[in-house]
Amino acid sequence: MWAASPAFRRQLFLLRSLSPPSPSPSPCAAALSTTTTFSSSSFGVHAMAAPVYEADAEAVVRRITPPLDRARHKGQAGKIAVIGGCREYTGAPYFAAISALKVGADLSHVFCTRDAATVIKSYSPELIVHPILEESYSVSDGERESISSRILTEVAKWMERFDCIVVGPGLGRDPFLLDCVSNIMRHARQANIPTVVDGDGLFLVTNNLSLVEHNSLAILTPNKYEYKRLVQKVLNSEVNEENASEQLTALCQKIGGITIMRKGQEDIISDGKTVTQVSTFGSPRRCGGQGDILSGSVAVFASWAQHFLLSNEYPTEKSVNSMILGCIAGSILLRKAASLAFEKNKRSTVTTDIIEFLGKSLEDICPAGH
Amino acid sequence: MWAASPAFRRQLFLLRSLSPPSPSPSPCAAALSTTTTFSSSSFGVHAMAAPVYEADAEAVVRRITPPLDRARHKGQAGKIAVIGGCREYTGAPYFAAISALKVGADLSHVFCTRDAATVIKSYSPELIVHPILEESYSVSDGERESISSRILTEVAKWMERFDCIVVGPGLGRDPFLLDCVSNIMRHARQANIPTVVDGDGLFLVTNNLSLVEHNSLAILTPNKYEYKRLVQKVLNSEVNEENASEQLTALCQKIGGITIMRKGQEDIISDGKTVTQVSTFGSPRRCGGQGDILSGSVAVFASWAQHFLLSNEYPTEKSVNSMILGCIAGSILLRKAASLAFEKNKRSTVTTDIIEFLGKSLEDICPAGH
Repeated sequence: MWAASPAFRRQLFLLRSLSPPSPSPSPCAAALSTTTTFSSSSFGVHAMAAPVYEADAEAVVRRITPPLDRARHKGQAGKIAVIGGCREYTGAPYFAAISALKVGADLSHVFCTRDAATVIKSYSPELIVHPILEESYSVSDGERESISSRILTEVAKWMERFDCIVVGPGLGRDPFLLDCVSNIMRHARQANIPTVVDGDGLFLVTNNLSLVEHNSLAILTPNKYEYKRLVQKVLNSEVNEENASEQLTALCQKIGGITIMRKGQEDIISDGKTVTQVSTFGSPRRCGGQGDILSGSVAVFASWAQHFLLSNEYPTEKSVNSMILGCIAGSILLRKAASLAFEKNKRSTVTTDIIEFLGKSLEDICPAGH
Repeated sequence: MWAASPAFRRQLFLLRSLSPPSPSPSPCAAALSTTTTFSSSSFGVHAMAAPVYEADAEAVVRRITPPLDRARHKGQAGKIAVIGGCREYTGAPYFAAISALKVGADLSHVFCTRDAATVIKSYSPELIVHPILEESYSVSDGERESISSRILTEVAKWMERFDCIVVGPGLGRDPFLLDCVSNIMRHARQANIPTVVDGDGLFLVTNNLSLVEHNSLAILTPNKYEYKRLVQKVLNSEVNEENASEQLTALCQKIGGITIMRKGQEDIISDGKTVTQVSTFGSPRRCGGQGDILSGSVAVFASWAQHFLLSNEYPTEKSVNSMILGCIAGSILLRKAASLAFEKNKRSTVTTDIIEFLGKSLEDICPAGH
């Protein structure tokens, strides 16, 4: 079940070919464009007016979600870590970490400050919460270097166990804490750990692009304002809605081929080569915290996609970007869950209500019995 | 009802005879093997290809679970203590302690560090949480001895009230804390308190086998990796799947006849004399925390089995190993509960969902009205 069927390999292949038409199409793309046996919808994409294609996101979820194999043991369905949670924010890292578990990860960790840890632990006994980050107010000038070094050592000893990390939910903007998190990001990169960056992690990255530049395992998930700041900083221009996909492509290219999911009415996803979107309607409720659900879900799906593609014996499929597949899957799952939660709770829908429906949404798309 | 019926005494008797055929069977075993009136299933065991027998685990649960007698008072259905919970881990001791209550113990205590206590208390008002352990970071060199002594005194004054203790869930690996826990284990042994060792308790024991050697009231419940380390340390070899039961038997014998439940697709249980297993399918979900449910449940069942056997007037039954019965019962209960939780929650099943079904699972096997 885990090995790809030929039909699916073709679907994945097409995902690679979603880039805008180039003057000299590659032989593969040319071959695909002449494959009339498969309609665009059977490939999981639908052409739109602009060169942005709607992903058949549910098909992606079904393909990358690993089968529930009885022979597997703890950890094999994913180990995720969220770097975030400070004196001010505790909800965001909890939402991201618990969402990872509810999507199907086996273990979900949070690395946060001591103040935040007690609270996050008390939200749920399911999470493993490490109270090791520090903010400036608790660190004297003389001890900054040694504490920074100790923090990195403590996170580093866990790092290689993780299939993906999420940097940013409830991180805050304390300079010392952000310095420490920069070190953690550099370490994760050296260890080839996929990294989803959201919230205050995007503030950090926008001001220090080298943290993600040329990291093909980095995913940024900016909302409207975070995207605006990123465009201003990187492209030195304003957001251009008329050429949204070209601008997103340029942005990804300029940062060296990282994956960006621009969140909005449609989630538009690119790695500088292809642009695809998910526009299934979710919910009109815009309560805070939905981005955290998304980042935690994307982390799980991206790691699943990576395992799936790495275990695929056909070299052509290995070039499919698993980070994009993770974004597509996370996007559709949140939208489905938000829709179900809104149907039940209407205007009073909050983030916890949406998390409650992650399981049913995944089950509707991809029954566990399969 | 608490006193054994003759039919059940024969069943228990057979549990003792589950060892691989020996060249000179005891007169009792020989007598049983010629008792053709009882099929193997009516004895609660089913022969398998290898010399490992499947336990009729539900029959074991029914036999050792005490009747709910109106004349009994608080504490008589069991008083359990979990030694675990540190700055890093709080979920694991909570899961173990609350599971003990949900299985049917009257009182469930947790002995943990101060940091952990506030959080564990906040998970549930049902638990009695003692914030008395300390980690190295909070203890100066000069005060180690006095603090260690104070911790032992505080735990010791409670010890004799407990029917079973669980050492290890969320214990962490702080050297000072582990030293204190070693003292607690030695004290429990002197007081003849059955002791289930899991998680970081297994790390402690693997590095200091004298803590459990020749303790017939000790149960180790290693998972795949913990078992591997134990085999490497004790037998100086690698895990041998082809001779799994022989290796497990040798391991138990080498540590002096303690009980080991090797967790996995099947839970294989031995005390160095018999090998039995529980392989009823539970759930394909491998979320962290299920081992904690198991350790808390085994603690309750082992104490029930011990009371049951001690109150049995036939000396032959007294030689049945109550620790093995506890393992069998805990294993089947977790598997049943995990199955029901998965049926409801599918991929989003987390440990709390499984705990929710402990009661129904026990009721299905052993209705309280009976």
